[in-house]
Parts: sequence; structure tokens; C-alpha cells
Amino acid sequence: MVTAKKIPERVIFPKGEKIAGEKIANGHFTGSVWLHVLVPDDSTFHCPAFNVTFEPCARNNWHKHPGGQILLVTGGKGYYQEAGRNAQVIREGDVVMIHPCVKHWHGAAPDHWLSHIAISTNVQRGEAAWLEPVPDEEYRAIRSGE
Amino acid sequence: MVTAKKIPERVIFPKGEKIAGEKIANGHFTGSVWLHVLVPDDSTFHCPAFNVTFEPCARNNWHKHPGGQILLVTGGKGYYQEAGRNAQVIREGDVVMIHPCVKHWHGAAPDHWLSHIAISTNVQRGEAAWLEPVPDEEYRAIRSGE
Repeated sequence: MVTAKKIPERVIFPKGEKIAGEKIANGHFTGSVWLHVLVPDDSTFHCPAFNVTFEPCARNNWHKHPGGQILLVTGGKGYYQEAGRNAQVIREGDVVMIHPCVKHWHGAAPDHWLSHIAISTNVQRGEAAWLEPVPDEEYRAIRSGE
Repeated sequence: MVTAKKIPERVIFPKGEKIAGEKIANGHFTGSVWLHVLVPDDSTFHCPAFNVTFEPCARNNWHKHPGGQILLVTGGKGYYQEAGRNAQVIREGDVVMIHPCVKHWHGAAPDHWLSHIAISTNVQRGEAAWLEPVPDEEYRAIRSGE
């Protein structure tokens, strides 16, 4: 039986390696997150793309992309929030266009995993700036409207 | 019952509008093809992305992208061929990195639909150059190796 809690091995694209969780902590995530490189960052395409999978409750810290980022949601249910706005529910089939330098975070809902493709845009403008985590009490207070 | 011949209404992302087929002929395709804009071509992200769905046997003409293109195959089975090389089978989960100015075509296999996300890279280098169709006799002669 498949339940909402089960993390899929792939949603079309491989789940990849665990980049955060109980065994690995790089400081940019809360909970377990897996990453598979679809397109490497190179000097031909300038279009790095990743498949990212979050376990329920997992999310990244607040951060900013100098060149922006595009999320193509491939499975599950999660949240996207920009600073100063309410969190939005995101689901399979949604496209999120994150403008350059907008402070934001994204991750899974409390009772669902989330998979999305993340495409880095205008990569010549530099790396993401990582900021503070989303505290548990703020995450738990999100009302998804459903 | 779902069969290989049935064209899905969506593979995660919407199928979109028919851009080629019996009712519309823009000269760049053989057979019926549907397109949904995931990310428009704009001056903020510079990263247009499309969901493209081909019926069995449908394919685009030979063409070249001055800035290259990336295909993320989301469903079905098809072919990708570069000029001077054998056609390669592409399937769900495959990533195709099409280098700038390489003459190529892509489309569905004879007995399967194909859906892929197409991301245009280095868009400042200009529009695709469209060339001749892939003749039926050449398409039918492809040996998929399976």
C-alpha cells in the first residue's frame, strides 16, 4: 500500500543522494532531502537542473538566488513562501517562478513528500545566498487553506 | 484500459494545444503534436520551457538551436537523432542535452506516444533554424535495438 508518508524512489527522475537529514547536515535544510543532478552546471548550456525530493516536513532555509530559479513540481504536495507573504500550497503540475533576489523557501507539507525539478536561471549572476531556517513553530502554523 | 496508442491528457503537466496535425500545419512537424508553455520566453528568466507531446510516429523536422536545448523525457517512448548518427531510443526519465548548432530531430516511436519538457538554453543566441522533414522511409527504417 502506498501512503502519503512513503517517499518514492523516483517520480519520473531518480531520487538521487540524500543531501540533508540525520546523517548529513550542510546547514541549509531541515529534515531529509534527496538530490539528483539532471543537468550539470557547465559552460555550454548554463542551465543546471536538479531533481529534489523532500520527506514530509522537510524544507530548505530561507534563501535568495541572484539569477532566479524555476520549480517544476513533479509529485506530492508542499509549500512555497516568499518573505512577507503567506505560504502557498504547491502540487504536481505546478510551476513556480522565483524572481532574482526574492527571499523564499520551499519544501514538503507535513503529511506529504514533495518532488520538484529546480532549474537555476541566469547562473552567471552567482550562487544562492543561504539564510536562516524556517522555525518549527512557523512551519506548523502554516494554514494550507485546505 | 490504457494502451500504448492512447495519448495522455497530461503527464504531470498539461498536454496543451495542438500545434501540428491534420488541422494545423506550420511546416515543422510530421503528425500531431501538442504544446503547453510551462515558462514563457521573458527578459527576467531567459529560460523558456515547454511540455511537448507527440502521437505515435509524430516528430519534428531536422533543426538546429543556436543556443542548444535540453529535453527531460516525462513519458512514453521516442527517438532522438543527430545528423550522421543512429537514432537513439529515449524514454521516461531520460535527459537529452542538445549542443548548440547540432542538426537533430526528436519525436515519438511508431507504437508509443512521447512527452518531454523542452528547455531552451542560451536564448540570446536566437531562434531555432528549421530544416527538412524526416521522410517516412527513413523513419520506418530506424532500428530501435529492442
